Amino acid sequence: MKALGRHIVCELSGCDPEILTDVDGIHAMMVTAAKVARATIMESAFHRFEPQGVSGTVILAESHLSIHTWPEKGYAAMDFYTCGDHTDPWLACDHAAEVLSAKSVLTTEFKRGIEKSDGEYTHVVTRDHVERSLSA
Amino acid sequence: MKALGRHIVCELSGCDPEILTDVDGIHAMMVTAAKVARATIMESAFHRFEPQGVSGTVILAESHLSIHTWPEKGYAAMDFYTCGDHTDPWLACDHAAEVLSAKSVLTTEFKRGIEKSDGEYTHVVTRDHVERSLSA
Repeated sequence: MKALGRHIVCELSGCDPEILTDVDGIHAMMVTAAKVARATIMESAFHRFEPQGVSGTVILAESHLSIHTWPEKGYAAMDFYTCGDHTDPWLACDHAAEVLSAKSVLTTEFKRGIEKSDGEYTHVVTRDHVERSLSA
Repeated sequence: MKALGRHIVCELSGCDPEILTDVDGIHAMMVTAAKVARATIMESAFHRFEPQGVSGTVILAESHLSIHTWPEKGYAAMDFYTCGDHTDPWLACDHAAEVLSAKSVLTTEFKRGIEKSDGEYTHVVTRDHVERSLSA
């Protein structure tokens, strides 16, 4: 099944609230996450909310990574979406979980941009609802 | 089931290749898509690839919208992710499909940021693999 890209929808729980509040730290983590996934950053946009919370995306040559944080809940919602056989979005996901000190990670993986015989594009879930507990 | 947000993963097929190539037009469409979903844009980042293709995101007060286009395939991969009861990501999705002149739209909807009893956050698919054909 040939797809243009892979997209991991990811919820990270039990994260360090201080890290989730630090927009510069989050930005740096996203840059490194793109690198470890072997992707190339073209643009980025980050925002620090008051009183707390960070949102941001890095636009890649190979799609994007995004993050939204709720420090008061120890929770971050992330997306890791990369195209091309040279990239691996799971490496970015593992890096994020480590930097945010997540205690658990819930993921669903899609393949996106699958061309059907009629020329339409579809997506399919390729790894459903995988939950990992991480040791501190 | 109380969730922090709703996220639509969306593939648009049979789109107008000229529109998919026009970074300013795509940016304008994304701004309007955020407005019709009753969301507020905080930041945005767009990139025009050579020889063709556009990628971009708008960071919302309520999460984000993103787009990646393949004009040569008439295909766009989009995400519509909004938080809060005042927003409706489906309104943004409908707007995008109309502006891109998509002939078909394939969507999967998640609810994200669902707090479980143990304090962990999860997501669930709430509308799976819905395909709509649109008249020209």
